[in-house]
This record gives sequence, structure tokens and C-alpha cells, in this order.
Amino acid sequence: MAGFLFCLLALDISTALSAVLLPRQGDPTWQDTTLPAAQRADALLPQLSWEEKIAQMGGIRRLLGANATFNRTAWEALYPLQHGILSYGSQLNQAQDVLPYANMVREEQLNSSKVPWITVTDSVNSIYVPGGTLFPATLSLSTSWNLPLYEEIVASIRDENMALGTHWVLSPELDIAKEPRNGRVGEMYGEDVYLVGEFAAQYVKTMQERDEGGHMKVATTVKHFLYGQGSGGVNTASMDGGVNHLYNDLAIPYIRVLKEKPASIMISYSSVDRIPMSMNTALIQDMLRSEMGFTGLIMSDAMGILHLYTESNVASSYKDAAIKALRAGLQLELAPGQPACFPYLVNSSSDQEIVDLVNEAARQHLIIKFDTAMFDLPLPTMENLNRTLRAPQHLDVNRRASREAIVLLSNDGFLPQANFSQVALIGPFGDIIDPGSYAPTTSANPEYGRTLRGSLEARMGAGNVRYVKGVDIRTTSPNDTAGIQEAVAVAKAAGVAIVSLGSLSVYSQDAAVNQRTDGEFYSHASLAFPGNQQQLLDAVLDTGVPTILVLNGGQAFVLNNSTMRCNAILHQFLGGEFSADALVEIITGQVNPSGKLTISMPQADGAFPIYYDFLPSDNVGGGGSDPTDSTVCAGDWNLPCLNRDGAPMAFGYGLSYTTFDISGPQVTNSNSSGGSISIFCTITNTGNVAGKEVVQVYFRQQYSDIELPNKRLVRFQKVELQPGEARQVKFVIDKADLGYYNNAKYQVDSGHYTFWVGSSSRMADLKNATISL
Amino acid sequence: MAGFLFCLLALDISTALSAVLLPRQGDPTWQDTTLPAAQRADALLPQLSWEEKIAQMGGIRRLLGANATFNRTAWEALYPLQHGILSYGSQLNQAQDVLPYANMVREEQLNSSKVPWITVTDSVNSIYVPGGTLFPATLSLSTSWNLPLYEEIVASIRDENMALGTHWVLSPELDIAKEPRNGRVGEMYGEDVYLVGEFAAQYVKTMQERDEGGHMKVATTVKHFLYGQGSGGVNTASMDGGVNHLYNDLAIPYIRVLKEKPASIMISYSSVDRIPMSMNTALIQDMLRSEMGFTGLIMSDAMGILHLYTESNVASSYKDAAIKALRAGLQLELAPGQPACFPYLVNSSSDQEIVDLVNEAARQHLIIKFDTAMFDLPLPTMENLNRTLRAPQHLDVNRRASREAIVLLSNDGFLPQANFSQVALIGPFGDIIDPGSYAPTTSANPEYGRTLRGSLEARMGAGNVRYVKGVDIRTTSPNDTAGIQEAVAVAKAAGVAIVSLGSLSVYSQDAAVNQRTDGEFYSHASLAFPGNQQQLLDAVLDTGVPTILVLNGGQAFVLNNSTMRCNAILHQFLGGEFSADALVEIITGQVNPSGKLTISMPQADGAFPIYYDFLPSDNVGGGGSDPTDSTVCAGDWNLPCLNRDGAPMAFGYGLSYTTFDISGPQVTNSNSSGGSISIFCTITNTGNVAGKEVVQVYFRQQYSDIELPNKRLVRFQKVELQPGEARQVKFVIDKADLGYYNNAKYQVDSGHYTFWVGSSSRMADLKNATISL
Repeated sequence: MAGFLFCLLALDISTALSAVLLPRQGDPTWQDTTLPAAQRADALLPQLSWEEKIAQMGGIRRLLGANATFNRTAWEALYPLQHGILSYGSQLNQAQDVLPYANMVREEQLNSSKVPWITVTDSVNSIYVPGGTLFPATLSLSTSWNLPLYEEIVASIRDENMALGTHWVLSPELDIAKEPRNGRVGEMYGEDVYLVGEFAAQYVKTMQERDEGGHMKVATTVKHFLYGQGSGGVNTASMDGGVNHLYNDLAIPYIRVLKEKPASIMISYSSVDRIPMSMNTALIQDMLRSEMGFTGLIMSDAMGILHLYTESNVASSYKDAAIKALRAGLQLELAPGQPACFPYLVNSSSDQEIVDLVNEAARQHLIIKFDTAMFDLPLPTMENLNRTLRAPQHLDVNRRASREAIVLLSNDGFLPQANFSQVALIGPFGDIIDPGSYAPTTSANPEYGRTLRGSLEARMGAGNVRYVKGVDIRTTSPNDTAGIQEAVAVAKAAGVAIVSLGSLSVYSQDAAVNQRTDGEFYSHASLAFPGNQQQLLDAVLDTGVPTILVLNGGQAFVLNNSTMRCNAILHQFLGGEFSADALVEIITGQVNPSGKLTISMPQADGAFPIYYDFLPSDNVGGGGSDPTDSTVCAGDWNLPCLNRDGAPMAFGYGLSYTTFDISGPQVTNSNSSGGSISIFCTITNTGNVAGKEVVQVYFRQQYSDIELPNKRLVRFQKVELQPGEARQVKFVIDKADLGYYNNAKYQVDSGHYTFWVGSSSRMADLKNATISL
Repeated sequence: MAGFLFCLLALDISTALSAVLLPRQGDPTWQDTTLPAAQRADALLPQLSWEEKIAQMGGIRRLLGANATFNRTAWEALYPLQHGILSYGSQLNQAQDVLPYANMVREEQLNSSKVPWITVTDSVNSIYVPGGTLFPATLSLSTSWNLPLYEEIVASIRDENMALGTHWVLSPELDIAKEPRNGRVGEMYGEDVYLVGEFAAQYVKTMQERDEGGHMKVATTVKHFLYGQGSGGVNTASMDGGVNHLYNDLAIPYIRVLKEKPASIMISYSSVDRIPMSMNTALIQDMLRSEMGFTGLIMSDAMGILHLYTESNVASSYKDAAIKALRAGLQLELAPGQPACFPYLVNSSSDQEIVDLVNEAARQHLIIKFDTAMFDLPLPTMENLNRTLRAPQHLDVNRRASREAIVLLSNDGFLPQANFSQVALIGPFGDIIDPGSYAPTTSANPEYGRTLRGSLEARMGAGNVRYVKGVDIRTTSPNDTAGIQEAVAVAKAAGVAIVSLGSLSVYSQDAAVNQRTDGEFYSHASLAFPGNQQQLLDAVLDTGVPTILVLNGGQAFVLNNSTMRCNAILHQFLGGEFSADALVEIITGQVNPSGKLTISMPQADGAFPIYYDFLPSDNVGGGGSDPTDSTVCAGDWNLPCLNRDGAPMAFGYGLSYTTFDISGPQVTNSNSSGGSISIFCTITNTGNVAGKEVVQVYFRQQYSDIELPNKRLVRFQKVELQPGEARQVKFVIDKADLGYYNNAKYQVDSGHYTFWVGSSSRMADLKNATISL
């Protein structure tokens, strides 16, 4: 009942205010909108009370509960010392239901002469509540290898966020996807530091674009500093550390992205070399601040500070945890579980060290709020929200993105099939969507878009699509015989089967959460299909009916010999609202697939790491095989190592319906033009249909002072060619881009360098040339 | 033919010499046997030529080829710059055939006025050629948790080595067995730094015991500095590094063992934080020399220096590799592949830095040779060799050791079975031994000892043991039906089955090497039984015939639900010549098993790390379970985590035929007696037979400056009790033993400490008390 009244109230006031005014007594300079954000922050800071400064360093995690309910009592309990940032709470409340409450609390805060709220939310493949355009998730989008397209995507998500009043997002994620057991791989851009850096830089640049008034549209949060291969693939697990490892394997994307001046950086949960990151002064101050030069705000991950006390036992109380985190450099406690730690600082106003650190933290908050115009913008209106969400151009971008965010992993020539008369759609992913646990949607009956069943029915007519779920995702009981038998029957009857399998990552309030196997908090001790899905697939394949396999989930799967019998395999990772339509377009040949893997796929559960840029030492012990080949796996006696001859599932790999020839590279050393080299090659579409290919450039130097990967991606470009069309592709590479970090210092060596150009990281797909620099 | 002539020559001279005399021109002080080794070395060093010094830094890897053949031409090609150390070559030449050649080349060297050879060989569970006592391998022996027994074992191996003229061994191995995919786990003492340190210290102390003349009996080589969880479980693979990780997770056993003053340390193949260890100045000089205070000789692993050039691409030539290794601190190039690198230093005699380093290296060699009396001892005699090898007391120690080096993993009460009338012995390990690839024996028809088939036949009569191999180890063809059917038939006929399965680690010249799946160069992408062995076991179990499973191999296995149907499971790891006899003694109840796991066993291929002393951060992400529980695994949705309630295969676990009660500990803080604490508990044999139990003490502190494991082993004691007998066990722990390394400095904190006492690392098997220090 209370919720209903607040709702009415909120609707009354939501458009009533046009700008923020604080009746402060001191220097009014901060109100001058023509001054730089830092100058306004410096002017306002002395006018904030101690408690107000502390309060900036935290906020309210859940504006609303499920069904758009607002709990005034809980809100007021937290408010006094936590009113810097606002999050919306349940990610299934409709945007149009959220806006009135968000505006209500904004107005209340202004009426109390407080610094205005800034909304900080996750925003992975959409705004963080339903009503917006739902794109595929990060890993899926990275498989497009298409940065101009990604710019359009991010601009769409940015504009929808602004319409809801969200001006600070918790992306991009720069974690390196080299640990296939980690359930969060679907949130990442892949396994390669260069590719991750380029996509993430594009994200920050586009999201933080300046408006006409010179204000940052939406502030970004680069995260999770630092994370990669945590122990056991566990979300919060430790890493061993080592300065060369940290710089070369994890920090490179940060160093790239810092050039775009992200507003904030989030610290990882991990314990690096036994020092939890939330108190890791060496990595935050010495590395991130001093060496890497980051000047923005540093925040914790949710409950990261709390864990110093409750989990890692390196702090002896909530307050001790707060002080250790503050001293290490943390300035915002994100979405705390209760009790929050930073409010305990309120009693430390006589400790000058803490006072100074709190002042600096509050100043950072004010800078972001001034920079994003939180003091100046009018409250967002329902009218603009309705106009902006799902704008036609956003939906168009999404359709184009979805078509490029699918990887064709195998095809014996069966695809494309322009005209099925009937199809059997089989598997637990056939009639749901799996966009990831940070997507604001339900998996079944999503508000927008279609499941694969829906897309097939729309294309072929409902009567020609016979859907059988067959098995649940997680059930491992042997009692799935009936479902499997039914699947076999419909496959035989239809004469062709599309089997949709995978690993589910949905929001904790989704109806299917009991079937969840992927996403944050989940680790994959096995990379096989969960439950009885393999049995279902095997039974369908045993019929001999032509079978297309569609993979779902933000992870790699082990594709065993039985699975490889499929006539074609497509991986969409975590698709968006139009991914099912795009799958049908690809299956039927309306769209030529062009996605390329951004994570390598292991061949057995224990056969990892499998990333392409392995160190020579990590090659199969004593194997004596070509150390420059593209991927590595543990040298198990019974396991054909992924890399050597033919196994395709390596970084950069993906099939097309046409064929491309990429010539050997010509490499020229342009000493005259500022120390760069130029690489030319010619790509020709040698097949019968138009298509897109990603030309990839890798390199390595002959000798180095520390051990370096066997090769490294240094450039890529996606090109579209008509049948028979040829085009010269040119890459210009600054010599400064060919270096590495040796004991935290960047160096570029002279000597011989080999460059490879081709269509994947596999040696068989590359041609090379060597020059001396 | 040449070989035969040399053989005759060798036999003529082998006992002719009694002492080494070098007609040197300079200071004769080095000949004074009453002086300390270092003083004699300092006196002799200036009298060595430059080439002679270089030659000390290498040696001859293969004295003999297969069938005791000596290749004079190959020998002479290497000799001039490689004549410091001698290795015997093929590990299947009989000791009595090797000795004459060894003495021959020793005499030749003396006749050339050279510094005498010292033989450096592996010596894991025996001398390194046949003819000696063959003990179980290292991991097996560690499961005894019996240090006094281990002392007897090492003394036996030591004395047999000396009889053959071997005075320098390439053990102990301090690598930490936390990576279950690593094929060399069987060479290690287990996953715990304390346990590894205690066993290794015992090894060094016993091997390096002084003779009556004050000489070191056999010099030891502590290895591989540093190695633990290499990438992918690959033998030579990289580690990330991090100073707290290196000190706390890897260096602690070295710090313990250094108190026993080992003669030498071998550097690992690994690349740590991208710096290959063979050139890792920081870890060799700053850590090992300066911080840890090691003053002995530092050697490479075989081909470790070469790999700087040929594998890791951090050196640009053989000579560059030699110089980088020398500068980092390497002083001996072990068993090089050709070309060796250190001989390239011969042209650097005008480089004073290199001259100084070579002088220091040669000096280290001379010290070891003087200290082991290589200049003073007579050549070993055939008579003493025959008297010493397989001396009755060595065989007796081996029998006792073998009985304690077997772990009973499960038992539904079926064991012991005093009187089988018949038994079906099934599986590819039923009639071979699997002692590890560093054991000087063949797997089939070993010269000494028995296979399980032999031991059962000796006990029951050949007619009552029906052996069926069933399947090969590696074959994965589906054509094993006949063998499996035959196994099923004999199981039914006999009414009881003993199934012997596992993973084979044999020497490269063993007839069964094509069945090898374990040991150096092998990694286990899967921890299932290789080949069709699981099918064989499943088929036997499906008959309902009572089944005892015997595991073989230096590794953990995933024991799936089907396997757990066995009535009893025993793991012998890499057994010796009497392990099969001991298995039969245990099965029949003549011996009560007392082995305890020193590595934790995963429950799924990807569910690792699984070691008991995990960091809190590494616990299942967000699981909220008891963080002090004993083991951890990746939090896969379908995987019951090993630790929680009931799954037994954790560090310290092993069953007995009797039961023990261990009381809760009493912990007293003895401030008066030099800063130690005392822990008392009472252990009672509450069953019906005599038995041995390992009382284990674990601890953790409440809060610390860096993240520490949830608990750590700090003491253990094996006690033998008659039925009904009770005994108080007392542990005294210096407070100094409760510390940890924080940024390379050792610290001990005040605060609350919890101590657990019990029979395994599982919380269910422990009782605790907390005190304040």
C-alpha cells in the first residue's frame, strides 16, 4: 500500500523539477556551469559536512524491490551515511515504473540540500531494467570483431541509459578470459589483451562522449582491476601475482583504456599474491596510480571491503576493513551488503589521515557528478524515456550486431539451407533466451524478441516447427527417456533437426534459476553440456537425421567426437533479443556468418589453459612440436592436442559460407615516417556469395629479455567483399606497439620480428614475413 | 666389439687403485685430508687450468648405452670440456656391469692428472641401476607419515649408492603436489609444505650423514627450485610468481631443508613470472642466496640452460644461454643434451666477470668432491658392492616401508578377508609393477619382488588365482569386449575380484612404454582411468561379485559413483618390489593399513585445485559455506564439493581396520619455556586389532596481514596402539613455527590461534581449541 502511494506521489513530481539547486552558504563558484568539473568540486567540497562526505562514498543498492515496491523504512535506515550513488534494485522492474521513484528520491535529496544522486548500474547488454533494447552480451559482441559496429551498439545503450537518468555504468569489463571454468567469461571480451583493450576503449570513448554542453554523457567503470585466471575458475579466487604477469597478461588492456580517461575503476574481489585487492596498496597506488597514471575514482566491488573482515581475515572489524580499504585507495563502497563498512569511518573525524582520504574521495565523487551534469541536468522525463527506449535505430543496430555475433564452428556443407519444409527443434534452449545474468529480462517469454522457436515459427509457419524440449538443463536423473524418445521421433518425422543446448545464465529471480549453470558465482568443473543434454544430442545424431547444433551460454564447451558428427555447429554465446532471428537468417543463408571466436575451445575438461598466446615454456613438456603453433593444451597421452593439425576451435576461428584468400604479407619498415611499419596483404573473396572476413595480424620477436608469447595479436580489420572481389588491406603499426613490460617498464627491442597475416590464430590459416627492426 | 674389450680392460683395473693422486705442481695443501673441504678446494683451484675449470661445470651423461656398451668415440668427443660429473646412462644396466666401467674411467681420469669424477645420478626409490633394493617411490613413502621409518629407508639407499661409487644424488624433490595434472606428482612428497619439508629434511640429513672420517656420505640435490603449479600441469610450464606465493607456497620446504645444509640445489625448468629459472637472477641470487642463505652449488636441470636459447627465446645462442645462466648463478650444467652450453665459455677467458664466476663454480665442485672424499676414497670394489646391495636389513626395511605406504581409501567392512579360497585378479596392473619412470627395473618380470599376481599366487597357490588382464592401459578401441567378458566370467567363478587399475609410469626403454600414461613429460588432462579400464571395472562390479580395487600410479584419480561401488579401494601409488606382498598382507589382514593421503583427490576432472590448505578467497564463490572446511573445489553446479560433508579423499585421510578416538586438544601457552606452546591429546584404540594412527595438528590464526590458508599442518606423529590401549600424545610447537612470510620477511603475529587435532584434514575428523598468543 505504501508503495502505491509513493508511486502516485512520484508520478506527480517526476517532471516538475528542471535543475538542481543547493542552498549552500559558502563560495558559490561551484554553481558556475562554465567552470571545469574539478574546479567546481574544489569549491563545493568545503561546504559539505563530514557526514555528507562519508555518505558520498556509499549509496543505496536497491531503490525498489520486486514488483516496483519501495521500502521507506529500509531506505531511511541507510540514507544518513549512504547517499552518494543510487541503484535501481530488482532488474525486472520496468523502466517506466522505475523512473518515477528515481525522480522522487532525487527530488527528496535536493529538497534536503544534499548533493544530487548519481545512478550507478550494471549495463552489460542493455539498460539494467526491462524496456530497453536487449543486445547480445559482451562475449558475443566481441565475436563480431567489428569496432565500428560496436560503437553504434554502445551509443544506443548509452542513450537509453541517459533517458532513464543513468549516468554511470559498471562497464567495461577487462578481465581476461583465459580460465574456461570461470562462470563470468560471458561478461568478458575474450582471451586476448589487445582485442579486449580495443573493444573496451571503444566502449569508454563512446559511453563518455561529451554532449553539446561539454558534459560526459555516461561515466564508465573499468573493472575488475585486476583479474584473469583465478584459482579453480572461482569468481572471487586468488591469483599468484608476479609483476611481469600482471603487466603483460592483465594490465595491457587497462593501459590502453586509460588513454580514454575512464571516470572510474572497480577493484576486483581477487586476492593477488595473498593481498586482497580491496586493500592492495601496491597494485592500487604504485601500479594503477603511479605507474599507469589513473587519476579518476576507485571503487570496490559489491561487498569487497566487507570480505576483508568476514572472508579473508585480514581485517579485524568492519571499521578496520574500511580503514584498510580507504588507505589502499578505495573511494566508493559499491552496493554493500549490510553492514556497509565506510559508514564506520564517521567516528574518525579526528584522524587527519582519514579526513584527508575522505576529502579526496568526496572530491572524486563531486568531479564525476559535475562532469556528468548531475547538478545541472533536469530530471529525466517519461516522455523522453518512451521516445528513446527501443528507438528504431537502436533496434536496427541490434539486428545488425546480432548477425555478426554468432560463430559458425563447423559445417560439412549442409548449411545454408534456404528452404526447409519442416524442422524438428530440440533441446532445453529451443524456447528460451539466455542473455546472461546481468540482462534485465526473463529467459522464457521475454518481453521483446523471440526464442529460436519463435523465430523459426515466424519464418516457416508454426505448423512446420515441431518443438521438443527433450531434457531439462540440470537434471541428471536417468528418467529422461521419454523426452529423448519424443525428440528422436520428431527428428525422424521432420527429416532435419536443430538442437539447441548449452549452459544457462539468468537473473536470480528468473523462473528458470533452478536450471542455472553459468554466470557469476558459477564455475565449470566440467565443460561438457550440463545434465542429460549430451544424451539427447547423441540420440538425435544416432538417427542419422541431418542435425544443426546451436550452442548457448557464456562459455566454451568441450565438443566431443559424438558432437562433431553434427552437420553444422553455431555458437551464439549469450544472445540478445534478435539473436534467434539472426540464427535463422544464418541457417537459411539470408545472412553469411562472420563471427570469430574470441576464446579458444578446449578438447577435454582438464585440457586447459588453451589460449593461443601461450608461452614457449607452457608448450607440451618435451613434445618437441612446433612452438609457434596456435594453441596449447596439457600433453595428455590420449588427447590430440588442440593446436597441431586441424582441430579448429582456436582464437580467431570461425567459418563463412564463402571462401577467402589472404595473400602473404608485405612488411615495410617506414623509418622515415616516425617509426612505424606497414603491412599489406590482399584479400579475395574466392567463393560464390558476399561475406565478411576478419584479417588478423599477429607477431613475435625472435629474442627478448623475458619470455614472451609465441605470437600476439596486434591488429585486425573486418572487410566485406562481394564474390570475386579483391581488396588490399593495409595495417600501420607503430613500433611502440611491439613492446612488452619488463619489471613494470615498457620496452621495445630491436631485432628480427615475424608478422603473420591470416584468418585465425592457427598456423594453418596464417602466412608470414620477417623483418629486422 | 669395442665394448667387450673395454669390459675386459675394466675388469682388470677395477680394484687395482686405492686412492687418487694428482701430480700437481703448486701448493700441496689440498692433499691434506685433515683440512676442511673448502680449504683444500681453495688450495687446489689455482692449479687447475681454465679448460679444467670449465670441464668441472659439466660431465658425461651416459657412461654406458643399453646392454652395457661403452662408446669410446662419443666419450672422447665430450671429454675435454665435460669431465666434472659422471652419470651411468641406461638405467637397465646391472650394477655389477656398471662398476667396472665406472672404475675404468675413474682410473683414466686419474692417470690424466684430472680432478676425480663424482657420480651424480637420480636415486628416487633405489640406486639408479638394477641390483639394489627397490623401494616404493617418494609419494608412496610419504603416505607412511613415518619419519623414523623414512630415515631407515634413506640410509639403505644411501649405503647401496656408496657401494656403487655414487656420492651425489639428484634428490630430494621439494615440488609441491598441488597440480593433479602434473605427471611428476609421484616423485613428490605431497601437497603440504610442512610435510614436504620434514620428509625432505630427513632425506638430506640421512643421505649426507658423515662417515667416521668426517666425510659426507652422499651429497644431495634439493630440487626443483622453485616449482609447484605450472600452467596446465605441464612439466616445464610457467608459473606467475608473486613473492608471498613463492615464499609461503613453495619456499617453506626449502627453508626447512636448508637447515640440513644440502650440498646442492637444482633449478627448475619453469619460467617464473616470465623469467626462466635458469637465468632468474632475482630468485637465485636475491631469494635463494641472500634471503635464504644457501651457500652450496647450484645446478641446472637437464637441458635447462639450452632451453633459454632453443625454447624460451631469451638467449640468442648457446653461448649467450651459458653466459646468462652463469651470471644468474648456475654452476653445473646437468646431463646436457648436445651441444652443451657451458663449454662455450671456454673462449671467454679474457672476460674477468666470467672468469670469476667460473672460478667460483669450480670451487663449489671441488668442495663437494673433497667433502665426499672423492680425492681420498679408494675405488669401490665388486666385493663390497655385492655385500651391500640388497643386504638383509635393507630388504627388511623395505618390507616394513611397503606395508605403511598403502592407503585404504574405502572399505565397507569387506576387508580384511583372511581366507579367500579363490580370487579373480583382473586388470592390466595385475601382473606388472609400476614403480615410476626413475626406477631401474622393467614393469613386467622385474628382477626382484613380485607383481600382485605373484604375491597372490605365493599366498594362495597358483591354482586359486585366476588372472585376466581384460584390457590394455591405453587402448581406447571398443574391441575389448572379449577381455572384459573373460574378466566377468572369472569374477563370477571365483566369487571375489581384485581389480588392479591405474596409470603407468615406466622407463622409456621398458617394453610397456607404449602403455605409459604417467611420469615426467606426461600431463593428465583427465584424471579418469586411461583407456577402457573403467569399463572393465564397471563390468566386474555389475556382476555383484565382491570387488577390491587396487590403484596404481603416481597420481590422484577421479573415483566416480560407479567406482565407489567397490567394497574396498586401496591406493599404492608407485609401489616397490614388496608392495604387492604388502597389498596381500593388508587384504588378508596380516597387516593393518596405516597410510594417509598426502595429496587430496578431486571429484571431477576440472574440480581442482583441491588441496586442503586453500585460501579463503578460493572457496566456492559466494557459496557461503564454512570457510574453514578442509578442501575446496570449483563450485560447479553439478558437483558435490569434495570438502563439505562426507566425501573422504582429503589430505591426511586413510582408513584402518581398527578405530581410534582422539580427544579434544589441550593447548597451553608456555611463556616460561622459550616461547613455545604445548598441545596434549589422548588417542585410544577403540577397535579390536592393533593399529597405527597418524595424529595430525593443524592451526590457523584469527587475523593476519596477508591472506593465509584456512588451516595449516604444523605437526604430526604416528603412534601404534594395541586394542584398548590409550596414550597421551604431546606436541611442542615453537611460536616461531606459527609465522608466515610477508613480502619475503618472516613474521609471527600475536592474537587468537585455533589448533585442531585429529586423524585427517577434514573438519569432521578434527577437534579444536583456541588460545591467545
